[in-house]
Amino acid sequence: MAKFMDVHHGMMGITDEQLQQAHAADLAIQREEGVTFEHAWADPEHGVVYCLSEAPDANAVQRIHERAGHPADEIHKVQLTV
Amino acid sequence: MAKFMDVHHGMMGITDEQLQQAHAADLAIQREEGVTFEHAWADPEHGVVYCLSEAPDANAVQRIHERAGHPADEIHKVQLTV
Repeated sequence: MAKFMDVHHGMMGITDEQLQQAHAADLAIQREEGVTFEHAWADPEHGVVYCLSEAPDANAVQRIHERAGHPADEIHKVQLTV
Repeated sequence: MAKFMDVHHGMMGITDEQLQQAHAADLAIQREEGVTFEHAWADPEHGVVYCLSEAPDANAVQRIHERAGHPADEIHKVQLTV
């Protein structure tokens, strides 16, 4: 297992309710890929959303995000954390 | 006070020790701008570092990062969090 930070662009104007719903959609199926989504942070003005997860690999993160309807634009394995 | 996610590019090959030192350099002076750096995550392969902070504004975050020797390439006010 490793930590991943994935990034979604083009989410200008995302609301708190939309972020909560998107996160809930991930949580509902994450176990099927062994992924645990820990946090998400959104900047509605610039349309950027960051998601932090623990997962077996980046593909597992992307499969959950795709099935939930919001594929990530970037997925970074963040091997180092403070 | 608000949450900010800032991003540093071009950090290919960053080591755990370098990340710890950079973070410590921020912590040493963060109080002077009312900033609290909470976490940092690094992807050494792609040279990306993400820092999560609480701060009065983005300029305060950048002033600390600049004085610590590692200005951010992007700073996003993440108004929404999960």
